[in-house]
Amino acid sequence: MKYTFSNRVNGLKPSTIREILKYSSDPGMIPLAAGNPSQDAFPTREIAEIAAAVLSENPVSALQYSVTEGYAPLREKVSSRMKDKYNIGRDFDELLITSGAQQVMDLAAKSLCNSGDAVICEEPSFIGSLNTFRSFGVRLIGVPLESDGMDMRKLETILKTEAKIRFIYTIPNFQNPSGLTMSLEKRKKLYALAGQYSALILEDNPYGDLRAFGEDIPSVKSFDEDGLVIYAGSFSKVLAPGLRVGYAVAPAEICRKMTVCKQGEDVHTNILAQIICERFMSNYDFEGHLKKIQKLYRGKIELAVRLMDEYFGEKIKYGKPDGGLFVWCELAGEINMQDFCAECLKHGVCVVPGSAFLTDETKPCQFFRINFSAPADKQLEQGIKILGDIAGQFL
Amino acid sequence: MKYTFSNRVNGLKPSTIREILKYSSDPGMIPLAAGNPSQDAFPTREIAEIAAAVLSENPVSALQYSVTEGYAPLREKVSSRMKDKYNIGRDFDELLITSGAQQVMDLAAKSLCNSGDAVICEEPSFIGSLNTFRSFGVRLIGVPLESDGMDMRKLETILKTEAKIRFIYTIPNFQNPSGLTMSLEKRKKLYALAGQYSALILEDNPYGDLRAFGEDIPSVKSFDEDGLVIYAGSFSKVLAPGLRVGYAVAPAEICRKMTVCKQGEDVHTNILAQIICERFMSNYDFEGHLKKIQKLYRGKIELAVRLMDEYFGEKIKYGKPDGGLFVWCELAGEINMQDFCAECLKHGVCVVPGSAFLTDETKPCQFFRINFSAPADKQLEQGIKILGDIAGQFL
Repeated sequence: MKYTFSNRVNGLKPSTIREILKYSSDPGMIPLAAGNPSQDAFPTREIAEIAAAVLSENPVSALQYSVTEGYAPLREKVSSRMKDKYNIGRDFDELLITSGAQQVMDLAAKSLCNSGDAVICEEPSFIGSLNTFRSFGVRLIGVPLESDGMDMRKLETILKTEAKIRFIYTIPNFQNPSGLTMSLEKRKKLYALAGQYSALILEDNPYGDLRAFGEDIPSVKSFDEDGLVIYAGSFSKVLAPGLRVGYAVAPAEICRKMTVCKQGEDVHTNILAQIICERFMSNYDFEGHLKKIQKLYRGKIELAVRLMDEYFGEKIKYGKPDGGLFVWCELAGEINMQDFCAECLKHGVCVVPGSAFLTDETKPCQFFRINFSAPADKQLEQGIKILGDIAGQFL
Repeated sequence: MKYTFSNRVNGLKPSTIREILKYSSDPGMIPLAAGNPSQDAFPTREIAEIAAAVLSENPVSALQYSVTEGYAPLREKVSSRMKDKYNIGRDFDELLITSGAQQVMDLAAKSLCNSGDAVICEEPSFIGSLNTFRSFGVRLIGVPLESDGMDMRKLETILKTEAKIRFIYTIPNFQNPSGLTMSLEKRKKLYALAGQYSALILEDNPYGDLRAFGEDIPSVKSFDEDGLVIYAGSFSKVLAPGLRVGYAVAPAEICRKMTVCKQGEDVHTNILAQIICERFMSNYDFEGHLKKIQKLYRGKIELAVRLMDEYFGEKIKYGKPDGGLFVWCELAGEINMQDFCAECLKHGVCVVPGSAFLTDETKPCQFFRINFSAPADKQLEQGIKILGDIAGQFL
């Protein structure tokens, strides 16, 4: 039989990263491609303790159907932390637990966007989110990233001229893939422009708690007195991604529409995973755990940067990130980046070509993304050395 | 700010069942509304053992990111069982692990349906699936259920006259809400009609393993030599719904498109839950466990039916189901079913009004759905007695 697909997903391809990830499962591969947290960052003993306690004391609570909005004690816990620590959430906001922050992107796009509507995103941006937006027939309009965040003049021009903007998608902290962080000034400007042009903002902050250097900058959502911002948070990078637990803080009306959409998607998020997150926050030293992984990643950033200087020399340009999981590298010369990444794969190193993160993936791109969190230190050294050698052959 | 939503979800309301479920969390309520399995059916000791073993032996395998297609050993295990036990799956098929079978409905509709396309479903049918289809702007066309399944003449008329049918949605075993099972003859006819009119079939079989009386009838997917059927299975009713693990068996091309859509929805399904399902199938007596819960539900069906005869007498008509979780009851007189269910709620019993399961929820409906699996035997007796009393007041 000849199958036909809906217009909105007909052209959709598997994410380059997910496809490369399949190679990563080969234990011989050096994994610099995916966004996997370090396995040393998982509080495995604590998670095992919590699972054992829940499944012996009250197994039914973890095994029966639950409500779509999420496990009530977890919602309260996350709400309080967001409010107290980050000034996120007003009386008009609600919180929804999702199956990873990826589901926030899906539910927001599904709730808000008709086919043909436009979403503004940073250029480059996280491919997973871009593909989700594409899957609802959305047009992506990229705004180039400067070292302190989106080019605000270009953003305003687009807001002025494009009628069908539904929201502006931003990853303000240690952006994926660029590693860049938006300045306070630009965050304020972004919020002001959204208000002025009646656009919403989708603020995706999976790495915010992974600051390795410098001081926290207030989130865009923390300015939100007008109900303009949907905030997406995640336990993937601070506890464990296999749990698939994220959350949205958004104006109640939007949050409720997203909840109805979630009912139809997966009824509710795995409940044992939600209880694990809640108990870890309540019964263990969550903030202390964050400090520990910040320290771990600080060491990994220092190491990666030292190795890159050693093995690449002048062959690449990069900015040292203040946190997160990625270094974004520009090769000093015009080469075919797909060929470069294929050659790296042949030599046992996975990296992602920069074009994967563009609104138009067919454009040439001199960047590639290195993940420094997943590889062990020794793998990082081996991997960057191999990348440096291959760069030398190409340049 | 005034929010507007996408056309496809603008009119979407929370599922009546999910809303009623919120009342059910009140421990004083007698829960005859939801489709919750009996908590006595959960293999809690085994699940606790597996979780403890995984989280001590190889915690990273349960906590790190995984592939969208699903945990490979679980895919193999389920594929083999489906093939060996039910003759489901051909060389052209693939298997995708999903976050509950609900996600199969979502991914199928997202992959296949444009706004304005039509989906044929049984009338009445499962509200959760209907809402999912609605959320993609799909027109629902209901085919009345007869005691042995869809009215095949009406189905053919619709297939003949409607151009934009994307698939026919069916729950062949112990249908939700009707409890009815499609005959072998009609299953064959359904498959033949789908082939003749180039429609796909979405076969949703969450209750197939819960047969309490009689012999298994081959699934529609077991006839599928032409790649017409997307089959949805679930661990929710045979292990535990809180795990949120389901699966699709579908022609490779469709399965891959659904996989790309799943990437954008939740990246992958909670991995500990997937491992729990796999290990339970591999290391424990899965088929023996099914026999045990079949026996449990056989007893509950007998009890429910006895109580209904005792407390309702002539005031209702119902068919004794051969399995599953529900009895579909028709009140012998024209009453306002919303008022009836509201009155029941006031007296501490949750049931779902039949109109919730119609393609047009505004139509009057003399049915309500009773779930017999969730309540303890004593609750079932109390609940049905109260329902009988209230029916007496209304009739």
